[in-house]
Amino acid sequence: MNPLDIPAAKDVLDAARRIENRVRRTPVLDDVHLDERSGARLHFKCENLQYGGAFKLRGAMNAVWSLSETEASAGVATHSSGNHGAALALAARSRGIACHAVVPEGAVRSKLDNIAANGATIHRCAANQHAREAGLALVLAQTGAVPIPPFDDARVIAGQGTAALELMQDVPGLECLVAPVGGGGLAAGTVLAAGIGSPTPLVYAAEPRGADDTWRSLSSGVRVTEQLPATIADGLRTTVGVRNFEILRGGLAAVLCVDEHEIIAAMKLAWSRLKLVIEPSSAVALAAILRHREHFAGRRVGVILSGGNVDLDQLPWLTQQRPN
Amino acid sequence: MNPLDIPAAKDVLDAARRIENRVRRTPVLDDVHLDERSGARLHFKCENLQYGGAFKLRGAMNAVWSLSETEASAGVATHSSGNHGAALALAARSRGIACHAVVPEGAVRSKLDNIAANGATIHRCAANQHAREAGLALVLAQTGAVPIPPFDDARVIAGQGTAALELMQDVPGLECLVAPVGGGGLAAGTVLAAGIGSPTPLVYAAEPRGADDTWRSLSSGVRVTEQLPATIADGLRTTVGVRNFEILRGGLAAVLCVDEHEIIAAMKLAWSRLKLVIEPSSAVALAAILRHREHFAGRRVGVILSGGNVDLDQLPWLTQQRPN
Repeated sequence: MNPLDIPAAKDVLDAARRIENRVRRTPVLDDVHLDERSGARLHFKCENLQYGGAFKLRGAMNAVWSLSETEASAGVATHSSGNHGAALALAARSRGIACHAVVPEGAVRSKLDNIAANGATIHRCAANQHAREAGLALVLAQTGAVPIPPFDDARVIAGQGTAALELMQDVPGLECLVAPVGGGGLAAGTVLAAGIGSPTPLVYAAEPRGADDTWRSLSSGVRVTEQLPATIADGLRTTVGVRNFEILRGGLAAVLCVDEHEIIAAMKLAWSRLKLVIEPSSAVALAAILRHREHFAGRRVGVILSGGNVDLDQLPWLTQQRPN
Repeated sequence: MNPLDIPAAKDVLDAARRIENRVRRTPVLDDVHLDERSGARLHFKCENLQYGGAFKLRGAMNAVWSLSETEASAGVATHSSGNHGAALALAARSRGIACHAVVPEGAVRSKLDNIAANGATIHRCAANQHAREAGLALVLAQTGAVPIPPFDDARVIAGQGTAALELMQDVPGLECLVAPVGGGGLAAGTVLAAGIGSPTPLVYAAEPRGADDTWRSLSSGVRVTEQLPATIADGLRTTVGVRNFEILRGGLAAVLCVDEHEIIAAMKLAWSRLKLVIEPSSAVALAAILRHREHFAGRRVGVILSGGNVDLDQLPWLTQQRPN
């Protein structure tokens, strides 16, 4: 599989076989109160319960185990300050190869610790995009490691699609799928997986209004490549990738945008009703369903709860009155 | 099944058949970090994900569906300010019968709302044990409803045992089971279920030092019937029941006590690592494992996370500096 290709539905099926028993088959939950609130029948795929606390392990696992013995021998590398770095480290460890993570100064301590705890070698760099890319290039040159990007990569997109695939297997007859969109790995993978479904569910991407580059990209037909994100959903601040955009432009029913207060309310509602710790990025999907009810009325809806990595000392419904 | 009998292992198996498809078969989770911290191999039975947010539905369901048509026709009743009332209301609704809940003044608003939302008729009474019992007696006389006590009842104990039964089915070879103990419905049910296991796991009850009546009862051989509880674990403040005590005195490996700061730390640790919202009572089980490591070193341990009903605006690691 060429990482530069646009992946297809078949690649999601291949990924599912490749990563089976290397990722957790996460449970699917529902709640009668959330059904009443939404007017739909909601089925939540709990990727917050995935190893590492996020769906990111799926793409990283598929990428790492797609490599030939020769390719894998020098290890893998990425620049990441978040969940992808930790997931790649876990995936590399599962194959017994090295992982190099280029991490910018100022990265959140707990996430850095998480990457290191999973066995990756940390390489520090300055906190800007240029320094991150230069830092990664240097590591690649020095180590011969294979770069694994966080979302704009055929192997990664196909891997992320396995969450929706499992969800459709566990809940037959889904009419809609909803996933949050940031770089677009999960959303694009969900579009590919939906193509396998019978009936084929409509796919909705949920996006914070404060980081609505995907909405703007699809509206204009031109991929937005820069934005100043203003959202609590830290996993969705990046702009959509090249391959991700190509898949989404042809495959989405709509991008549904939500405001910050809706994200926070949905997050607290999910914690309260589902008894799950989910991060703001996950809450964006539920918030979109509650705000844009007209798309989902009376339908069977699969919702991907993308992750649960949250600072438990800084819960937004307890701190939202403070200025950011 | 006579509710006044001491139930046996067979009653747990009967209960499992009776309530199958009426309760959620909750998932079992594990976490490599918690294994490292404990020195054991931990498997968490997620009853916080049960309908109603607690294992309580199991006992209530078993009791309600144990009734004959004639018995059930006038409905069921209980006095409860907490999870049992809500669970009984859900169970009664599943059978299409009435539920009467006698609720003391000053009960937590959200729990009251929960009981009412599940379709029960609320009867208010003064906030003391005598008024609760008198209030219930009055309701029983007026309605002809069948009383379903929260824990000291053969049907309820047998129902609660189904959580451990499922856990043993899903994780073969468990050597230990750990459940929190308050009134002793869950702990006693777990002892009964353990008797079905092969090998038979040792059962440990976990108890807050601030409400250690079970520890004192088993130490002295005489059931303690009054205490002034001082613990955040609101589900464990009551004293152990008659039938519960009889089962526990013969069947427990030990009662393991923990301090308040250990409960709070274990609660936050579980939220952080398992991405689950669990209530303090559930955290008592994990706290006991971390404090009393010598019982579990290298062993396969099943842990029952009893519930997830928490006030999300009052998290103890954020408010613990305040006086209670």
